[in-house]
Amino acid sequence: MKRTLLALLLTAAAPVSAQQSITTLPAPVVADSRVAALRDGALTNDHYAWDLTEGLTTEVGQRLAATEAEARARDWAVKRLTAMGFANVHVEPFTMPVWTRGAESAEILSPFPQKLAVAALGYSGSTGPNGITGGIVYFDSVDALRIAPDSAVRGKIVFIDHHMMPAQDGSGYGQFGAPRRQGPTIASLKGAIGIVIRSIGTDHHRNPHTGVQYFTDGAEPIPAGALTVPDAEQLVRILKRGMPVTMRLTLVSEKHEGGQSGNVIAEVPGRDPKAPILLVGGHLDSWDLGTGAIDDASGVAIMTAAAKHIMDAGRPLRTIRVVWFGAEEPGGFGGKAYAEAHGREAYAIAGESDFGADRIWRFASKLMTTDPAAYAQLAASLAPLGITKNDKGGADGTDVEPTIDAGAPWISLSQDGTRYFDYHHTPDDTLDKIDPAQLRQNVAAWTTVLATLSGGIESGAKQPKRR
Amino acid sequence: MKRTLLALLLTAAAPVSAQQSITTLPAPVVADSRVAALRDGALTNDHYAWDLTEGLTTEVGQRLAATEAEARARDWAVKRLTAMGFANVHVEPFTMPVWTRGAESAEILSPFPQKLAVAALGYSGSTGPNGITGGIVYFDSVDALRIAPDSAVRGKIVFIDHHMMPAQDGSGYGQFGAPRRQGPTIASLKGAIGIVIRSIGTDHHRNPHTGVQYFTDGAEPIPAGALTVPDAEQLVRILKRGMPVTMRLTLVSEKHEGGQSGNVIAEVPGRDPKAPILLVGGHLDSWDLGTGAIDDASGVAIMTAAAKHIMDAGRPLRTIRVVWFGAEEPGGFGGKAYAEAHGREAYAIAGESDFGADRIWRFASKLMTTDPAAYAQLAASLAPLGITKNDKGGADGTDVEPTIDAGAPWISLSQDGTRYFDYHHTPDDTLDKIDPAQLRQNVAAWTTVLATLSGGIESGAKQPKRR
Repeated sequence: MKRTLLALLLTAAAPVSAQQSITTLPAPVVADSRVAALRDGALTNDHYAWDLTEGLTTEVGQRLAATEAEARARDWAVKRLTAMGFANVHVEPFTMPVWTRGAESAEILSPFPQKLAVAALGYSGSTGPNGITGGIVYFDSVDALRIAPDSAVRGKIVFIDHHMMPAQDGSGYGQFGAPRRQGPTIASLKGAIGIVIRSIGTDHHRNPHTGVQYFTDGAEPIPAGALTVPDAEQLVRILKRGMPVTMRLTLVSEKHEGGQSGNVIAEVPGRDPKAPILLVGGHLDSWDLGTGAIDDASGVAIMTAAAKHIMDAGRPLRTIRVVWFGAEEPGGFGGKAYAEAHGREAYAIAGESDFGADRIWRFASKLMTTDPAAYAQLAASLAPLGITKNDKGGADGTDVEPTIDAGAPWISLSQDGTRYFDYHHTPDDTLDKIDPAQLRQNVAAWTTVLATLSGGIESGAKQPKRR
Repeated sequence: MKRTLLALLLTAAAPVSAQQSITTLPAPVVADSRVAALRDGALTNDHYAWDLTEGLTTEVGQRLAATEAEARARDWAVKRLTAMGFANVHVEPFTMPVWTRGAESAEILSPFPQKLAVAALGYSGSTGPNGITGGIVYFDSVDALRIAPDSAVRGKIVFIDHHMMPAQDGSGYGQFGAPRRQGPTIASLKGAIGIVIRSIGTDHHRNPHTGVQYFTDGAEPIPAGALTVPDAEQLVRILKRGMPVTMRLTLVSEKHEGGQSGNVIAEVPGRDPKAPILLVGGHLDSWDLGTGAIDDASGVAIMTAAAKHIMDAGRPLRTIRVVWFGAEEPGGFGGKAYAEAHGREAYAIAGESDFGADRIWRFASKLMTTDPAAYAQLAASLAPLGITKNDKGGADGTDVEPTIDAGAPWISLSQDGTRYFDYHHTPDDTLDKIDPAQLRQNVAAWTTVLATLSGGIESGAKQPKRR
């Protein structure tokens, strides 16, 4: 690309100033017509993503990391990806600590006896079958717990409240997720016998939001659970009566080392095996409460469907590698294992889909600075899907992060997360939460990305169709 | 009232014909200004209904009929009603068979092993702790089960599907509730070892809808449960693969005779003890899964709040009797016990609130024919709340029905039921489902009814305020 065109493109990214005259308008950038045709075909006709999401959630269901359910999911993935015509379909295994859930309950013993709905957080300590009983001590944030004297906490069951609200970009998850991520460790270090948090969620249903936490800084594991949002609000109302509140908490769980997980890898081989790879993926595992439809069956389905649309169109110059990462939920084990094995390969791009299947509304990419022409092409081709470029955006995603840290250029396509934390990590993460039209928009967007960055698709070199 | 005015009022109820000239317009009926003031005061300022709903659901929680929880609720009610200044507060006890829930689970063993969320229906048979295992046989309606040969059902677990949709008047509950009410009996008579139904609900959450059913026609009790809507859809998808589906179903429960329940009764005494009574109520008991906020803490709260607004204004000519009926859910035991004791007393009106707390949108009453002037007054006074008269409406309500059958004139105020069956009989029936503004509209409507039919309120004869 000529430097003058490049300069004009960079001008397009700058805010329009009042002084700017009409003669400084940027040169037009329009979508490549072949890319546009692939995009629109996926938007209208894609069925791969729905079939994959429906199949994985129906025929396997929940896929807790390093359990036999996740192993069945890997078998399912290998079979399905092979049947779809992908090349080099294989599993790359790794080991990790595995944590599984047993019986769970929370019961107010006094002053108002009643049961509350609860689920253990990942790597929670176990109460054993008889549970623990203790007084509740309330904190409205994790920092309020942090500054409390140990004497206020010792021997008690900590309860951390918060007020997370829905946001399109899901940005509340960082701050309001702290009670889950840090609360158990802090409570343990202060001598608490257990902790319950208000679920990190934005719904009002009796479905608890689980999620991972680790005991760090030498903290002894204690039982750690999430109350549903209505139950947390109930506990707040009870506490506001000003009487001591006693809870019996039962969170039975098991943890052991040496669990088996793995990444499932499939490729659309490029015409140039040495060209940098297009790496796209999502995670195969899920939490155990729902069927992991939005987290993250839809993610692996979207990426696989997009790659399949390129495969159907012909043979790209660059290899497309689709990874169904294992064991993301308990701590990104699959992403780390992948980067250890493949982090030093050459990548043209790395991206993942792990924020549900509602419509993509914006994108960001390292290409803005490293390949502005490609970035401008992407912006032009994604705009008809209602997707805006986000020049200030950053890399995103647990699974590709270690590979990006190793040097791969990143791209992030942001789904609308307004309702994502209604279902996230709950029993309610099921197929009915997927909107097929929005799912197709996701596939169309990623098809656009892959087509734009493919280096050109040769129809004559089409893959054999084996679906 | 003069007969000519009566004739004009009746004309108002007839459809306007093209031939009707302007001279036949009905005489105006406007709201009584005292009634309007009470109505608007309740609409703006009522806090009684929220306080009662919040208190009962927080300080007692679930109130399963004839259990110690329902007994605690009666104690709570007596204390609160007395504190609010009601007269003649007392419990009228009765006995009934009591059914309680134990451990519950449903698990697909093949072809795709996974757990489904389930809850037993009221008076379900018990599987015992080890559960039962059987093949699933599918029916898309209760009538499809009815016409099936016994050989297709014998030894199996019946699954009945349906497709209930939300409706403002809740009318789907009749037809689509049949799988719950009749399905277990029919399945048992055909030799099924158990039955699961798609929850009678309009939501898509992993919360099962319980509800009562009886084994009739000599049917042996079998285990009978409701799958959540997402789980029922999952089971349908699994069945569509065409392979035999095996389920292990565990529904532990206990039933015994001689359970203790009771009605809680409170009055605003009228100036004329012999004048026909205004009877209003709701039910104190709830199912055991949620805290019974919309079913029916809000109902007793609305009626109690409306009566309290009259009490606060002065002394009505007619006695207002508020009944918190016991044991409605398992079969209207409280309503029957009340009618046996009080059905032959003289009533000016009988009405209940048992359809949540969303806004009232229409009303109907026997008064349309027995006291058209009062009916017209009600229509005029309720209209500013957005409530329309429904000349074709009928009596409604399990608790007051036996008293209406004994001769009491009825009035029905219909709540908007569009979202009622999202929460009905589920763990999700909790306080956060109550909209305070709509709750106040309910109180304003019933305050209007009581004020209009009070026979006149004397401010000088005000009740002592003891709240």
